[in-house]
Amino acid sequence: MKAKDILVKPIVTVSSQTPLTEVAQKMLEHRVGSVVVVDEKGRLAGIITQGDFCRHPGRMVPFSLFESPNVLSNWLYPDQVEKVYKAARNLRAQDIMHSPVVTVSPEASLERVLALMLKHDINRIPVVRRGRVVGIISRFDLLKVMQQGYGA
Amino acid sequence: MKAKDILVKPIVTVSSQTPLTEVAQKMLEHRVGSVVVVDEKGRLAGIITQGDFCRHPGRMVPFSLFESPNVLSNWLYPDQVEKVYKAARNLRAQDIMHSPVVTVSPEASLERVLALMLKHDINRIPVVRRGRVVGIISRFDLLKVMQQGYGA
Repeated sequence: MKAKDILVKPIVTVSSQTPLTEVAQKMLEHRVGSVVVVDEKGRLAGIITQGDFCRHPGRMVPFSLFESPNVLSNWLYPDQVEKVYKAARNLRAQDIMHSPVVTVSPEASLERVLALMLKHDINRIPVVRRGRVVGIISRFDLLKVMQQGYGA
Repeated sequence: MKAKDILVKPIVTVSSQTPLTEVAQKMLEHRVGSVVVVDEKGRLAGIITQGDFCRHPGRMVPFSLFESPNVLSNWLYPDQVEKVYKAARNLRAQDIMHSPVVTVSPEASLERVLALMLKHDINRIPVVRRGRVVGIISRFDLLKVMQQGYGA
């Protein structure tokens, strides 16, 4: 089996200019832990996981803010809450995304996908053909292949 | 192969009375996404993942607070920061833990471990013998088994 046989699509993408508020909304709406960032030509530019929302000094808007809006009103005055949301609207996908991204081609073997996932300790690998993302493979998807191998 | 053949130990545990500040410190120190909660008799009481820090209304202290302490000083006045830390010291593991926990016995087949992980969409399953946790199995551990199957 190859990457193209198990990849999942459609993938959830954002543009490099998408505000963090929308990035978070997309993740919550599609119940995914990461989104793929593409440039204006549709080419892979980066990837964003929930943890990336808090990775960069000076550009930190915790993902939990979007997941549990109450968390802020627990601790902040209304004017502060508005400040945080404003920052989240002004920050763009490109400000917090990971890049470069570990990718595989559609023809990559599952052994290779698995080896890359374990080596880099990542949960998802975009499948890319000529710079364009054609799907994504997660740990979950590989475990499902493993389950089929057991004849379950 | 059985659960006992691939379980990982020692596991990172906290008591049900451990303050959230310490729970978070343990996760960061051991670089794990979850800790197992045991009661005073050493029996499995629950499990805590990073997401659980923000799951319960009125008991929300975002995990990112511990991961990136600066995130708060970006947005809060010093007296507010102190209030959040105080809450984190007063909240206990038992206040945010998941319970009951999906577990397997050491004799469980890997097929069963895998099926439970996929069914419940969870990343880790504690292995329990007579109420006591003897190890834990993660998606990563199962993927390593899969890799061995490929002869890598």
